[in-house]
Amino acid sequence: MDANDGFRELDRPECLRLLATVPVGRIVYTRHALPAVLPVNFCLDHDGAVLVRTSASSELVAAVDGALVAFEADEVDAATHSGWSVVVMGSAAVVTEPAEHTRMLRTGPRSWAPAPQEVFLRIAPELLTGRELVGGRSLYGVSLP
Amino acid sequence: MDANDGFRELDRPECLRLLATVPVGRIVYTRHALPAVLPVNFCLDHDGAVLVRTSASSELVAAVDGALVAFEADEVDAATHSGWSVVVMGSAAVVTEPAEHTRMLRTGPRSWAPAPQEVFLRIAPELLTGRELVGGRSLYGVSLP
Repeated sequence: MDANDGFRELDRPECLRLLATVPVGRIVYTRHALPAVLPVNFCLDHDGAVLVRTSASSELVAAVDGALVAFEADEVDAATHSGWSVVVMGSAAVVTEPAEHTRMLRTGPRSWAPAPQEVFLRIAPELLTGRELVGGRSLYGVSLP
Repeated sequence: MDANDGFRELDRPECLRLLATVPVGRIVYTRHALPAVLPVNFCLDHDGAVLVRTSASSELVAAVDGALVAFEADEVDAATHSGWSVVVMGSAAVVTEPAEHTRMLRTGPRSWAPAPQEVFLRIAPELLTGRELVGGRSLYGVSLP
Protein backbone atom coordinates (compact mmCIF):
# COMPACT_ATOMS: atom_id res chain seq x y z
CA MET A 1 0.00 0.00 0.00
CA ASP A 2 1.27 3.43 -0.82
CA ALA A 3 1.59 5.62 2.25
CA ASN A 4 -0.68 8.61 1.74
CA ASP A 5 -1.20 7.42 -1.82
CA GLY A 6 1.85 9.36 -2.91
CA PHE A 7 0.59 12.70 -1.70
CA ARG A 8 3.00 14.88 0.25
CA GLU A 9 1.87 15.28 3.83
CA LEU A 10 1.69 18.86 5.16
CA ASP A 11 2.94 19.84 8.58
CA ARG A 12 0.87 21.84 11.04
CA PRO A 13 2.18 25.32 10.08
CA GLU A 14 1.57 24.60 6.41
CA CYS A 15 -1.94 23.39 7.21
CA LEU A 16 -2.77 26.58 9.09
CA ARG A 17 -1.23 28.79 6.44
CA LEU A 18 -3.33 27.16 3.71
CA LEU A 19 -6.51 27.14 5.77
CA ALA A 20 -6.16 30.88 6.19
CA THR A 21 -6.31 31.40 2.43
CA VAL A 22 -9.84 30.16 1.81
CA PRO A 23 -13.17 31.53 3.04
CA VAL A 24 -15.19 28.31 2.97
CA GLY A 25 -14.75 24.87 4.46
CA ARG A 26 -16.93 21.92 5.35
CA ILE A 27 -17.99 20.64 8.73
CA VAL A 28 -18.20 16.85 8.74
CA TYR A 29 -20.41 15.54 11.50
CA THR A 30 -23.05 12.98 12.32
CA ARG A 31 -26.71 13.71 11.64
CA HIS A 32 -29.40 11.08 12.18
CA ALA A 33 -26.61 8.51 12.56
CA LEU A 34 -25.26 9.26 9.08
CA PRO A 35 -22.33 11.38 7.94
CA ALA A 36 -23.33 14.95 7.20
CA VAL A 37 -21.25 17.53 5.39
CA LEU A 38 -22.09 21.23 5.46
CA PRO A 39 -20.13 23.96 3.68
CA VAL A 40 -19.70 27.01 5.89
CA ASN A 41 -17.74 30.20 5.78
CA PHE A 42 -15.22 30.40 8.57
CA CYS A 43 -12.28 32.18 10.11
CA LEU A 44 -9.24 30.92 11.89
CA ASP A 45 -8.76 32.23 15.38
CA HIS A 46 -5.31 33.28 16.55
CA ASP A 47 -4.73 29.83 18.03
CA GLY A 48 -5.69 27.99 14.87
CA ALA A 49 -9.21 27.15 16.01
CA VAL A 50 -11.90 27.17 13.35
CA LEU A 51 -14.68 29.69 14.00
CA VAL A 52 -18.12 29.43 12.44
CA ARG A 53 -21.01 31.76 13.06
CA THR A 54 -24.51 30.35 12.99
CA SER A 55 -28.02 30.61 14.36
CA ALA A 56 -28.29 29.58 17.99
CA SER A 57 -31.24 27.36 17.12
CA SER A 58 -29.62 25.71 14.14
CA GLU A 59 -29.61 21.98 13.63
CA LEU A 60 -25.86 22.33 13.21
CA VAL A 61 -25.37 23.59 16.74
CA ALA A 62 -27.61 20.88 18.13
CA ALA A 63 -25.66 18.24 16.27
CA VAL A 64 -22.10 19.34 16.99
CA ASP A 65 -21.99 21.28 20.27
CA GLY A 66 -19.75 19.18 22.48
CA ALA A 67 -18.99 16.64 19.78
CA LEU A 68 -15.83 15.65 17.95
CA VAL A 69 -16.05 16.89 14.39
CA ALA A 70 -13.89 17.19 11.33
CA PHE A 71 -13.54 20.37 9.31
CA GLU A 72 -12.14 20.17 5.83
CA ALA A 73 -11.03 22.82 3.39
CA ASP A 74 -9.32 22.47 0.06
CA GLU A 75 -8.35 24.14 -3.13
CA VAL A 76 -8.35 21.87 -6.11
CA ASP A 77 -7.60 22.52 -9.76
CA ALA A 78 -9.16 19.67 -11.69
CA ALA A 79 -7.43 20.70 -14.93
CA THR A 80 -3.90 20.50 -13.56
CA HIS A 81 -4.65 17.81 -10.97
CA SER A 82 -3.15 19.98 -8.28
CA GLY A 83 -4.15 21.46 -4.97
CA TRP A 84 -4.29 20.75 -1.31
CA SER A 85 -6.64 19.53 1.39
CA VAL A 86 -6.51 20.11 5.12
CA VAL A 87 -8.61 18.44 7.81
CA VAL A 88 -8.96 19.83 11.31
CA MET A 89 -10.21 17.42 13.93
CA GLY A 90 -11.36 18.55 17.32
CA SER A 91 -14.17 19.21 19.72
CA ALA A 92 -16.76 21.71 18.65
CA ALA A 93 -18.32 23.99 21.22
CA VAL A 94 -20.49 27.07 21.30
CA VAL A 95 -18.56 30.05 22.62
CA THR A 96 -20.34 31.04 25.82
CA GLU A 97 -17.87 33.42 27.41
CA PRO A 98 -19.32 36.91 26.82
CA ALA A 99 -15.99 38.65 26.30
CA GLU A 100 -14.96 36.05 23.75
CA HIS A 101 -18.28 36.34 21.95
CA THR A 102 -17.85 40.11 21.78
CA ARG A 103 -14.32 39.74 20.47
CA MET A 104 -15.53 37.40 17.75
CA LEU A 105 -18.34 39.76 16.74
CA ARG A 106 -15.57 42.17 15.82
CA THR A 107 -13.00 39.85 14.33
CA GLY A 108 -14.77 36.60 13.58
CA PRO A 109 -16.64 35.28 10.56
CA ARG A 110 -19.92 36.63 9.29
CA SER A 111 -22.80 34.21 9.22
CA TRP A 112 -24.20 32.74 6.06
CA ALA A 113 -27.80 33.60 6.78
CA PRO A 114 -28.13 36.21 9.54
CA ALA A 115 -30.46 35.14 12.31
CA PRO A 116 -31.92 36.92 15.32
CA GLN A 117 -29.74 35.05 17.77
CA GLU A 118 -26.33 33.95 16.64
CA VAL A 119 -23.52 32.07 18.28
CA PHE A 120 -19.97 31.18 17.42
CA LEU A 121 -18.95 27.56 17.10
CA ARG A 122 -15.33 26.92 17.87
CA ILE A 123 -13.61 23.79 16.58
CA ALA A 124 -10.48 23.15 18.58
CA PRO A 125 -7.39 22.53 16.42
CA GLU A 126 -6.53 19.28 18.19
CA LEU A 127 -5.34 17.39 15.15
CA LEU A 128 -4.45 18.89 11.79
CA THR A 129 -3.65 16.79 8.77
CA GLY A 130 -3.01 17.99 5.30
CA ARG A 131 -2.08 16.69 1.89
CA GLU A 132 -0.71 18.29 -1.18
CA LEU A 133 -2.61 16.81 -4.10
CA VAL A 134 -0.23 16.53 -6.97
CA GLY A 135 -1.14 14.60 -10.07
CA GLY A 136 0.51 13.83 -13.33
CA ARG A 137 3.31 11.93 -11.70
CA SER A 138 3.78 8.19 -11.75
CA LEU A 139 4.31 6.41 -8.49
CA TYR A 140 7.86 5.75 -9.57
CA GLY A 141 8.66 9.43 -9.54
CA VAL A 142 8.72 10.00 -13.29
CA SER A 143 6.81 13.08 -14.42
CA LEU A 144 4.20 12.30 -17.04
CA PRO A 145 3.12 14.92 -19.59
CA MET B 1 -34.81 24.01 15.88
CA ASP B 2 -34.92 25.14 12.30
CA ALA B 3 -35.39 22.24 9.92
CA ASN B 4 -32.38 22.17 7.61
CA ASP B 5 -31.36 25.50 9.12
CA GLY B 6 -33.48 27.33 6.55
CA PHE B 7 -31.75 25.82 3.55
CA ARG B 8 -33.94 24.51 0.74
CA GLU B 9 -33.64 20.76 0.43
CA LEU B 10 -32.92 19.42 -3.06
CA ASP B 11 -34.67 16.42 -4.51
CA ARG B 12 -32.83 13.51 -6.10
CA PRO B 13 -32.98 14.73 -9.72
CA GLU B 14 -31.69 18.14 -8.66
CA CYS B 15 -28.88 16.51 -6.71
CA LEU B 16 -27.78 14.46 -9.70
CA ARG B 17 -28.05 17.41 -12.07
CA LEU B 18 -25.81 19.54 -9.83
CA LEU B 19 -23.32 16.75 -9.18
CA ALA B 20 -22.84 16.42 -12.90
CA THR B 21 -21.66 20.03 -13.15
CA VAL B 22 -18.50 19.75 -11.07
CA PRO B 23 -15.33 17.73 -11.67
CA VAL B 24 -14.22 17.32 -8.07
CA GLY B 25 -15.83 16.01 -4.91
CA ARG B 26 -14.73 14.60 -1.60
CA ILE B 27 -14.85 11.09 -0.28
CA VAL B 28 -15.60 11.04 3.44
CA TYR B 29 -14.50 7.82 5.08
CA THR B 30 -12.86 6.40 8.15
CA ARG B 31 -9.08 6.15 8.36
CA HIS B 32 -7.33 4.99 11.54
CA ALA B 33 -10.67 5.31 13.34
CA LEU B 34 -10.93 9.01 12.48
CA PRO B 35 -12.87 10.83 9.78
CA ALA B 36 -10.87 11.27 6.60
CA VAL B 37 -11.76 13.53 3.70
CA LEU B 38 -10.08 13.24 0.31
CA PRO B 39 -10.82 15.43 -2.70
CA VAL B 40 -11.01 13.39 -5.88
CA ASN B 41 -12.04 13.97 -9.45
CA PHE B 42 -15.03 11.89 -10.40
CA CYS B 43 -17.71 11.11 -12.93
CA LEU B 44 -21.31 10.12 -12.53
CA ASP B 45 -22.28 6.87 -14.11
CA HIS B 46 -25.55 6.56 -16.03
CA ASP B 47 -27.30 5.28 -12.90
CA GLY B 48 -26.07 8.13 -10.71
CA ALA B 49 -23.26 6.15 -9.10
CA VAL B 50 -20.09 8.08 -8.35
CA LEU B 51 -17.01 6.75 -10.14
CA VAL B 52 -13.48 7.42 -8.97
CA ARG B 53 -10.34 6.09 -10.59
CA THR B 54 -7.39 5.29 -8.38
CA SER B 55 -4.36 3.11 -7.87
CA ALA B 56 -5.21 -0.49 -7.03
CA SER B 57 -2.79 -0.36 -4.11
CA SER B 58 -3.99 2.95 -2.73
CA GLU B 59 -4.80 3.48 0.91
CA LEU B 60 -8.14 4.81 -0.29
CA VAL B 61 -9.13 1.49 -1.84
CA ALA B 62 -8.01 -0.39 1.24
CA ALA B 63 -10.05 1.91 3.45
CA VAL B 64 -13.30 2.09 1.49
CA ASP B 65 -13.72 -1.08 -0.60
CA GLY B 66 -16.87 -2.67 0.77
CA ALA B 67 -17.56 0.14 3.20
CA LEU B 68 -20.32 2.71 3.51
CA VAL B 69 -18.96 6.11 2.56
CA ALA B 70 -20.18 9.60 1.95
CA PHE B 71 -19.25 11.61 -1.12
CA GLU B 72 -19.77 15.35 -1.07
CA ALA B 73 -19.58 17.97 -3.77
CA ASP B 74 -20.47 21.62 -3.64
CA GLU B 75 -20.20 24.95 -5.33
CA VAL B 76 -20.04 27.84 -2.96
CA ASP B 77 -19.70 31.56 -3.57
CA ALA B 78 -18.49 33.07 -0.33
CA ALA B 79 -19.07 36.62 -1.57
CA THR B 80 -22.75 36.17 -2.31
CA HIS B 81 -23.33 33.48 0.34
CA SER B 82 -24.87 31.23 -2.26
CA GLY B 83 -24.35 27.76 -3.61
CA TRP B 84 -25.29 24.19 -3.11
CA SER B 85 -24.04 21.01 -1.51
CA VAL B 86 -24.89 17.42 -2.32
CA VAL B 87 -23.98 14.30 -0.34
CA VAL B 88 -24.15 10.82 -1.80
CA MET B 89 -24.20 7.97 0.69
CA GLY B 90 -23.67 4.42 -0.32
CA SER B 91 -21.45 1.38 -0.43
CA ALA B 92 -18.13 1.77 -2.17
CA ALA B 93 -16.74 -1.12 -4.16
CA VAL B 94 -13.96 -1.74 -6.63
CA VAL B 95 -15.36 -2.55 -10.04
CA THR B 96 -14.22 -6.09 -10.78
CA GLU B 97 -16.34 -7.06 -13.77
CA PRO B 98 -13.98 -6.84 -16.77
CA ALA B 99 -16.56 -5.52 -19.23
CA GLU B 100 -17.53 -2.79 -16.79
CA HIS B 101 -13.91 -1.87 -16.18
CA THR B 102 -13.36 -1.63 -19.94
CA ARG B 103 -16.44 0.51 -20.35
CA MET B 104 -15.23 2.87 -17.62
CA LEU B 105 -11.78 3.14 -19.18
CA ARG B 106 -13.56 4.71 -22.14
CA THR B 107 -16.19 6.81 -20.43
CA GLY B 108 -15.14 7.11 -16.81
CA PRO B 109 -12.99 9.58 -14.90
CA ARG B 110 -9.26 10.00 -15.35
CA SER B 111 -7.13 9.36 -12.33
CA TRP B 112 -5.42 12.06 -10.34
CA ALA B 113 -2.00 10.48 -10.40
CA PRO B 114 -1.72 7.72 -13.01
CA ALA B 115 -0.47 4.46 -11.58
CA PRO B 116 0.62 1.19 -13.15
CA GLN B 117 -2.47 -0.65 -11.97
CA GLU B 118 -5.67 1.31 -11.66
CA VAL B 119 -9.16 0.42 -10.59
CA PHE B 120 -12.50 2.13 -10.51
CA LEU B 121 -14.25 2.70 -7.24
CA ARG B 122 -18.01 2.85 -7.53
CA ILE B 123 -20.08 4.54 -4.83
CA ALA B 124 -23.67 3.38 -5.08
CA PRO B 125 -26.19 6.25 -5.08
CA GLU B 126 -28.24 4.75 -2.24
CA LEU B 127 -29.09 8.01 -0.52
CA LEU B 128 -28.75 11.47 -2.00
CA THR B 129 -29.29 14.60 0.02
CA GLY B 130 -28.73 18.14 -1.11
CA ARG B 131 -29.11 21.66 0.11
CA GLU B 132 -29.28 24.98 -1.60
CA LEU B 133 -27.15 27.34 0.45
CA VAL B 134 -28.76 30.73 0.29
CA GLY B 135 -27.69 33.52 2.54
CA GLY B 136 -28.61 37.11 3.08
CA ARG B 137 -32.10 36.22 4.16
CA SER B 138 -33.48 36.37 7.66
CA LEU B 139 -35.20 33.33 9.05
CA TYR B 140 -38.43 35.27 8.93
CA GLY B 141 -38.29 35.51 5.18
CA VAL B 142 -37.34 39.16 4.88
CA SER B 143 -34.52 39.83 2.45
CA LEU B 144 -31.65 41.71 3.99
CA PRO B 145 -29.47 43.99 1.88
